[in-house]
Amino acid sequence: MKPLAEIGQPLAQVDTPALIVDLDAFETNLKTMADMIAGGPAKLRGHSKTHKSPVIGLKQMELGAVGVCCQKVGEAEAMVEGGVDNVLVSNQVAGASKLDRLADLNRRAFVPFCVDHVQGVAQASQAAKRAGVTMDALVEIDVGGGRCGVQPGQAAVDLARIVDAADGLRFGGLQAYHGSVQHVRDHAERHAHAQEAVDKARMTVEALSAEGFTCDIVGGAGTGTFQTEAASGIYNELQAGSYVFMDTDYALNLGADGEQAGQFQYALFVQTSVMSMPVPERVVLDAGHKTCAIDSGPPQPFGLPGAVTGSLSDEHAVLDVTEVNNRPGWGDHVLLIPGHCDPTVNLHDHYICVRSLHTPGAVVEDIWPVAARGALN
Amino acid sequence: MKPLAEIGQPLAQVDTPALIVDLDAFETNLKTMADMIAGGPAKLRGHSKTHKSPVIGLKQMELGAVGVCCQKVGEAEAMVEGGVDNVLVSNQVAGASKLDRLADLNRRAFVPFCVDHVQGVAQASQAAKRAGVTMDALVEIDVGGGRCGVQPGQAAVDLARIVDAADGLRFGGLQAYHGSVQHVRDHAERHAHAQEAVDKARMTVEALSAEGFTCDIVGGAGTGTFQTEAASGIYNELQAGSYVFMDTDYALNLGADGEQAGQFQYALFVQTSVMSMPVPERVVLDAGHKTCAIDSGPPQPFGLPGAVTGSLSDEHAVLDVTEVNNRPGWGDHVLLIPGHCDPTVNLHDHYICVRSLHTPGAVVEDIWPVAARGALN
Repeated sequence: MKPLAEIGQPLAQVDTPALIVDLDAFETNLKTMADMIAGGPAKLRGHSKTHKSPVIGLKQMELGAVGVCCQKVGEAEAMVEGGVDNVLVSNQVAGASKLDRLADLNRRAFVPFCVDHVQGVAQASQAAKRAGVTMDALVEIDVGGGRCGVQPGQAAVDLARIVDAADGLRFGGLQAYHGSVQHVRDHAERHAHAQEAVDKARMTVEALSAEGFTCDIVGGAGTGTFQTEAASGIYNELQAGSYVFMDTDYALNLGADGEQAGQFQYALFVQTSVMSMPVPERVVLDAGHKTCAIDSGPPQPFGLPGAVTGSLSDEHAVLDVTEVNNRPGWGDHVLLIPGHCDPTVNLHDHYICVRSLHTPGAVVEDIWPVAARGALN
Repeated sequence: MKPLAEIGQPLAQVDTPALIVDLDAFETNLKTMADMIAGGPAKLRGHSKTHKSPVIGLKQMELGAVGVCCQKVGEAEAMVEGGVDNVLVSNQVAGASKLDRLADLNRRAFVPFCVDHVQGVAQASQAAKRAGVTMDALVEIDVGGGRCGVQPGQAAVDLARIVDAADGLRFGGLQAYHGSVQHVRDHAERHAHAQEAVDKARMTVEALSAEGFTCDIVGGAGTGTFQTEAASGIYNELQAGSYVFMDTDYALNLGADGEQAGQFQYALFVQTSVMSMPVPERVVLDAGHKTCAIDSGPPQPFGLPGAVTGSLSDEHAVLDVTEVNNRPGWGDHVLLIPGHCDPTVNLHDHYICVRSLHTPGAVVEDIWPVAARGALN
């Protein structure tokens, strides 16, 4: 699809709804993360399921990231196509056609992936043999999330042995991500759970080591907990993604001071227009949940203190502006902060990148495709 | 994006996740609706925000629909491009660039739209004059949903008068859709609310008539209530959309008998694969809420009695299969019934259309683009 905007266009003239990147906040977030982990043994492997953009992946790598990770082979293809040469599929891959594509990618870049089942190992081995490549497979362990992954310890060693014996595969290390804990609101509780994940990863690394297996990669962590994994001495790769943009859900964890989101800043917005204002207390924006994902709560208006997000339907967001002093008028633009950045990005085809976003003269500085938009396979 | 499948390919070989149309159920749904309203004064104007496909819009018209409706100018463009010559934008349109596109479309097809504010009328009038076209504008009234629309009665007459006086615009009728009531679970309560909408529409049509305004279109209704509006003698167009596919949310309203959805059948599925089964009671599917929208509840597995959908993350769905007798194995395919068809369709680029879906030899009969996928503007 054609971008909604042109470079140099005033933001005020950009059609709505549009996915907007605040370049200043975005660059600050990238730098903040790089600074926070600088000098430690754990490097960033930014999660590209958040941004789906090799442009952003390469910016992360310029600041020290070893590469990116992603959840889908289609995302890995978009990353490699865009010049990222080190892409971990931090997920299981099931199905011969996807594994053939993964094997093919491994001719062009380093694209390891995860296994947690003997059949996954067998199917991947066949694909590697068909392609004549060797692929690194990480064993995923369940460090508390109750989703994928074998149990820590002996089960991981057993699966590593199966990987090691499989033609075309090489044991590449451990995937030890605790997803659900990222969203625990209380700081101490969140990091206590992350420490449990660290303990399970350590125990498993030691069990593997005792059997002669070295983990090139021990990966996990997210925006909510990465400091704990970074300090562990066990994890050497951190898979934080959301820090680049932030969202209202992570702001509830990491501290939201007014319209800042604690250590990271809000850098992603959906620019909307007031399309209806049938009564003075209600404005209706031209963006619903087909534009702004609501799995982690509704979007929040930026710069409208007192406004309350009401119902969201497919293409409408209702705001109660009863308590708002300077109410927007018909056709005025309103910026929304997404509840969850990752699935919101996936609803759009382009990032409209703006510097000095919250100033009247803001113009479009760059446009980046959401290259892996809809890469579900 | 390239389709995931090829015509003639066995469904069992189609990569996952994939958006699947059960052609038999789909065609039955189209016929059922056509039969249910046949002979009445109200014709179907199927809502293309559900399917985003001119192929499907044309099939609805072959069975008697006057055209389609949609929510966005971008959707209207996709419909006209695909050969649909009568497309109501059943929504307000705010912004000069969108209104210019709308005016341009009106050179090629009949593309009326809605207004509920004097500034919307003024901006549309300017666009029509720039393009040298006349556009039909429907006045939207709030029949109880509390979203867009002026109040029924005099306020609608006042706005109709403003439309009538605006260069390049013609008063086209009333938009009187009650969205939230579609999802009221109880049949009697739902239709009682729909009757209230009918009463407000009737009162407004009469007030308009008393002032000399004729409504070419009186449109509204959805899959949950269309029988009431069809029987009203006031509505002449029914904007039902979801009936073509059904989903688990509408099944809760319209009656779900086992894996049938009452009068309409489940015709839309997401085919997934078991990508992880770390413990016998849990399988993890390769489709999360980036694949299957969850605004109206999680998807439900088809043909797995006893399975319970647990957490959905971006790219994973966890099923508890404790109570399932024939549990799927690693790599096996599982069909999910979406919670809400409209936003689920918007996450995909193609429909993979299959006949005799629930038989072992099912093959891909057709592939339709989701032409208006991501048409947010």
